[in-house]
Formats: sequence, structure tokens, C-alpha cells
Amino acid sequence: MGNRDRIIIAAKELFNLYGSSNIGTNKIAAHLGISPGNLYYHFKNREEIIRTIFPEISDATDAALTLPSRSGLSPEDFGDLMVNWIQLVWKYRFFYGNLVALLRKDDLLKELYMERRDKTLSIMQTAILAYSHQSSENNIKFSEEDAGKLAKNIWIVALNWIGFLQVEKEDQDITFTDLLAGAYQIFALMEPYLDQPTIFTVQSQIQSRLEAIK
Amino acid sequence: MGNRDRIIIAAKELFNLYGSSNIGTNKIAAHLGISPGNLYYHFKNREEIIRTIFPEISDATDAALTLPSRSGLSPEDFGDLMVNWIQLVWKYRFFYGNLVALLRKDDLLKELYMERRDKTLSIMQTAILAYSHQSSENNIKFSEEDAGKLAKNIWIVALNWIGFLQVEKEDQDITFTDLLAGAYQIFALMEPYLDQPTIFTVQSQIQSRLEAIK
Repeated sequence: MGNRDRIIIAAKELFNLYGSSNIGTNKIAAHLGISPGNLYYHFKNREEIIRTIFPEISDATDAALTLPSRSGLSPEDFGDLMVNWIQLVWKYRFFYGNLVALLRKDDLLKELYMERRDKTLSIMQTAILAYSHQSSENNIKFSEEDAGKLAKNIWIVALNWIGFLQVEKEDQDITFTDLLAGAYQIFALMEPYLDQPTIFTVQSQIQSRLEAIK
Repeated sequence: MGNRDRIIIAAKELFNLYGSSNIGTNKIAAHLGISPGNLYYHFKNREEIIRTIFPEISDATDAALTLPSRSGLSPEDFGDLMVNWIQLVWKYRFFYGNLVALLRKDDLLKELYMERRDKTLSIMQTAILAYSHQSSENNIKFSEEDAGKLAKNIWIVALNWIGFLQVEKEDQDITFTDLLAGAYQIFALMEPYLDQPTIFTVQSQIQSRLEAIK
């Protein structure tokens, strides 16, 4: 593996452990036992490293949101989505736990992020409308506007669950289990639209996914 | 008015305009035309100023959450609550827009905040259960656990709506109108539990409160 790839891997690890604001390029170089000059040859600064990681975060977001190709969403799919999403936020917690500060330091990253956010919100809105259509016998009907609001609320809770935890704990004390409680918290946003057996099935699916991960 | 009160007023104004991390005690002193030593006589540092402001934020939170003494919540009350809450976040946006960072700098403030948060969540949970009881003819029933989850989601969206805006705009470009769109966004969390006429009444109440403010 070349130094460029090693730098990216080490940066993600160190950022997640200590917070990106506490890890500069010199610390990454020292961690890898390479010279600051060698690192500088690949990346001019921390912002450039984070911007280089971003497409990976974006691809992982697409993967987390990928729905089964058969038509319609099953309750199990809902459960999978919640857990996938929380796993994503955990994997890139240095990014989601410090979003506003990072975007304010880098206009280019901000532009990429905004595009990504709009894409994600649109995928979620479409999924909600599709589910609403599929379940029309249960009298669940969303207008486009309502589906958009629900998607935005899911987004806000999903990304800020880590902020909710950060108030109580330091970053290094937040565990994957803490974050997984967020899967239930996000799912609570959808519960009012689902009947009791469906809710039970989704919660069981979340539970069994979590047990498989432990 | 004594210098102590003038310092507090100037600090709130400058923090909201430029962000608390960009305003130190020297800038506050210069703004007031007093010496740094005079300010230091009243407050040792920025953290002490923010900690002194906190009880005011806490009292304003109680006021924003105060429900009419008659029993039961009307749709208009719901609308008022949303607008009150957004006004609160706007008034103290330096605090809510930078919460994690501020609490991490001051353990004492963190303790006060956590107590406040738990109190607010408990008031909201109680209100949701009371409403659920009142509306039992409409088949809206919450378990304590569900009411707790809804309260927490309302809290997360209400406090992070400003963060959602901060991704798109600099603090000084965020307007009261931007923030007020959050009233509808928070209310969307409650819509699935309410019938269509109630939703319409709440939205009209939000609308007319907003027009009165403009």
C-alpha cells in the first residue's frame, strides 16, 4: 500500500479517536513514521485529507440507503435502513460529529456536502412516497410536502443523535452501543405511520441486526 | 445600570452577532469602553459570563413551555409552543448553535444544562401524555416510552434546526424568518398524531403568530 492510502486510513482512525480538530498533519505523519514533508507531498493540509475522504463517505451513504430491487419496502427493510444509517454515522463519526465546523473551514467540501445532502433527502422522500403508495390500503397517504418534512426530520435526528450523546460524553467514551440506541430513536419518527405488527417486526429486525453485530 | 449588567447585555449581543468563540472578554470590554481590568473584576473569563447567562436561558425555557392553566391543550396552544420555542432558540442562538463546544469547555455549565435538559424532556413527556389522555376518543394513545421518544425527537429537531441552517449560511446571515420555518418543521413531528382539522388550526396559529411578529 502506498503512503497516500496509508495516510487516509490513519487519518480516519485518528480523527475518529481524537476528533479532527485535535489531529493535524504532523500527528498523522508521526503516527505513520513518515516525515511531514512526505505527507505534504500527498496532502497540503487537513482540509485536503478530509475532502479526499468525502467521496468514500458519499459512496457509503448510497450503500447504506440502497433498497432491495424488488418493489416495495418490507418492515425488515426499514429495520435494516435504520441500522445501516447508524453504522455509517459511527464509521465516519469524526465527520458527522463536527459537521458545521468542518464545512465552515472548507467551501469546496461544503458544496460537495450540500449536493450529497440534497440527494439523500430526495432518495428518502421518494422512498416515503413509495411506501405510502404501497400502503394505501392502510390509509397512509403523504403529500410530497409531508414526505419532504419527514425526510428532513429523519435526517436531522439521524445526524444529530451523535450530538445528543456528545453533550453527555466525550467523543472517545461514546460507544457503538450508545449510537445504536439511535436506531430506535430514528425509527420512532416513522412509528406513527405504521401499524402495530409492522412496528413490532421492524423493532425485532433492528434487535436481531444489533445482536449479529455485537 | 451597573457595569456587571452592561457586560452581560453586551456579551449576549456580541455572542449572537459574531459567535461566542470569536468574542473574548477584551472585545466585550472594548465594545463597552471599559478597561479589561474592570471587566475582569466582574468576570474571570468568557465561561463565567456564559454560566451567568444560563439561568436566564433556563427561566426563558420555562416561560416558553408554560401551558395555559386550564386543563387540556388546544391546537392554538400547540402552535404557540412551536413559535415560543423557536423564539427562544433565536434569542440565545449563540448558545444553542454551539452547544457541544460550550459544554465541553465548562463542566459546571454542562451539569446545569443536563439538569435543564432532563427537566424540559420531562415536561414535554408529561404534556404529550396529557394530550394523549385528553384525545383518547381519537384513539391516540402513547405509552410512557413512546411519549419519551417523541419528546426527545422534538428536542433534537428543535435544537438542531439552527445547525441545519448553519450548514447553508454563516451565523450572521441566518435570519429570524429562516429559524421560524423550524416551527413548521418541529410541528411535522406531531402531525401524524393529530386529525386534519387540528393540524390546519395549529398551522394557522403558527402563521398568525409569525405575522404578528414581523
